[in-house]
Amino acid sequence: MRDDYLDKFFSGDMLAAARLMSIVERGGDEAEGVLTALFPRMGRSYRIGMTGLTGAGKSTLVNQLTKHYRSKGLTVGVVAEDPTSPFSGGAILGDRVRMLDAHGDAGVFIRSIASRGSETGLSEKATELADILDAFGRDLIFLETIGVGQLETKIRYSAHTTVVVLTPDAGDDVQSLKSGLMEVGEVFVVNKADRPIAQRYSDDLRSMLDLRSPGDGWQPPVVCTVATTGDGIDELANKIDSHRTFLDANGRLEEKRFEALKNRMRRLTEEKLKELFWENEYIKKSLETALSEVVSGNKSPYQAADEIVMPIKIEKDKIEKKDKVKGRGKRKGGAR
Amino acid sequence: MRDDYLDKFFSGDMLAAARLMSIVERGGDEAEGVLTALFPRMGRSYRIGMTGLTGAGKSTLVNQLTKHYRSKGLTVGVVAEDPTSPFSGGAILGDRVRMLDAHGDAGVFIRSIASRGSETGLSEKATELADILDAFGRDLIFLETIGVGQLETKIRYSAHTTVVVLTPDAGDDVQSLKSGLMEVGEVFVVNKADRPIAQRYSDDLRSMLDLRSPGDGWQPPVVCTVATTGDGIDELANKIDSHRTFLDANGRLEEKRFEALKNRMRRLTEEKLKELFWENEYIKKSLETALSEVVSGNKSPYQAADEIVMPIKIEKDKIEKKDKVKGRGKRKGGAR
Repeated sequence: MRDDYLDKFFSGDMLAAARLMSIVERGGDEAEGVLTALFPRMGRSYRIGMTGLTGAGKSTLVNQLTKHYRSKGLTVGVVAEDPTSPFSGGAILGDRVRMLDAHGDAGVFIRSIASRGSETGLSEKATELADILDAFGRDLIFLETIGVGQLETKIRYSAHTTVVVLTPDAGDDVQSLKSGLMEVGEVFVVNKADRPIAQRYSDDLRSMLDLRSPGDGWQPPVVCTVATTGDGIDELANKIDSHRTFLDANGRLEEKRFEALKNRMRRLTEEKLKELFWENEYIKKSLETALSEVVSGNKSPYQAADEIVMPIKIEKDKIEKKDKVKGRGKRKGGAR
Repeated sequence: MRDDYLDKFFSGDMLAAARLMSIVERGGDEAEGVLTALFPRMGRSYRIGMTGLTGAGKSTLVNQLTKHYRSKGLTVGVVAEDPTSPFSGGAILGDRVRMLDAHGDAGVFIRSIASRGSETGLSEKATELADILDAFGRDLIFLETIGVGQLETKIRYSAHTTVVVLTPDAGDDVQSLKSGLMEVGEVFVVNKADRPIAQRYSDDLRSMLDLRSPGDGWQPPVVCTVATTGDGIDELANKIDSHRTFLDANGRLEEKRFEALKNRMRRLTEEKLKELFWENEYIKKSLETALSEVVSGNKSPYQAADEIVMPIKIEKDKIEKKDKVKGRGKRKGGAR
């Protein structure tokens, strides 16, 4: 069944791609199997993160950018975090409706992801869905995330260019921007720039960005757009392309891909480590014992946690021995 | 030096409390030392989580509720997530200014926490700061968090009553609420209820909450407030108190405290586990090797991650259940 989807996927079947995405969204061993099978085809797409508060116009911008890049012959994938229906768990259309422009075009693949579930899961899942679109051969992938708090910084793990979308709201000023948003931005958009205060807002933003010393030599530009009319979209695409050229020219793109992979590997490994740890009967019992000691006031949670991890050993002996045996074998064959 | 602060802290010195909080915010061994020392005094405060989007009026509500509870003779602590200045890292006053009402009253202790740093760090730190206020003897502790995406669900780990603060904005409707917010709420506030659409909004919210089958027998009430004028604050406090009484009456409060402790223990243990793991030289090398194999396309990240955790052994278990540990690669763990 899965292999069936894989064959179809490799021949460019969008329905198969959607099915594989659903498998990956559900997670578990089957999801791992799919991602492992697709892995050799990944690593070619260019990933653009679009982040900003709800209502900033991210979806409309993605829609406009999609049209722009489609007109240049590039294929596009979109992975978007969506508000979910309060109790049904189904995705609410809302912003997505505006994306319908792109429907019917096989060069555009849009996937919404429910912003519920485990706290670490979302950006991980979004990255995995982007991986599938990558393996599917999409040239560009937009990752649309709600940027608040710490979550948005996570898109950096997989986005090559991060676009921060802001709106000039009366009463807000640039100073009150969340630092998380400021720090991740490589291109800044002041959307709804037809509002009267847009000019002052974007000027303030530019001054503030000037104060930031660009560690990597890239000075983030500010682009004013009106997503609903398409004003400023070409300039925005232009800035995104410039950033891509910049990354390409100094080897940063490869570095970013490698960094993303390293982060990914670390997190995957940690997940497996935790799974391995908590499913162990001895550790489970140990947690229960520790809890009762903490509750009775005999230990602090910190002391107790130290004790729970105590029986962990990293058995390198076995592996080193194996290596030695291997090495000896080689020497035997070569020298004698 | 630290012991000096501890002595002063135990005698009720607010400055010492502030210093200990700074130590805890920095983290590390010293932070653990402080929390371990204070641990025996924790577990008496009642914790109220206030969550909602930026601009919903959470701080003003906390301010009003603080006045309310102070007038009843209860001491109050507040731990608030604050937007931080974009580049300085300093806390922007903004909402905090309105909290100045409470300054000069030794019965109120307000602590802002910068919403930057590691993605897992924030709610953990907020909980630890609340723990200090708890050990300091505060009767009530407000945990004010920006509720978007998954983060807000974390406050459940330590809040006994979670208040979700909403505002009736034109164009938004209740249906578009993020499910995360709906699911964590035990008391709902429609703030800025002087807006014309407030009535319809709160009616819709009530109908929607009615559809939710309360697993624990508590039906979340909806309270309309105008935080700036104080309208509805007494009713809100009333509902919070009712929820507390409800929890108390059926043993749920103790359960919640235990659950919070258990979650905490698990996360603490995981932190220590990860630390132990990644600081191991062999594992570090193993990650590097795995990465190059993944980059060269010889392995998928999933296969590689499996191999990195391979040398992990849980000592006591190894002796007791040797064959199960051996069989770990194939079957899902040695768990029965």
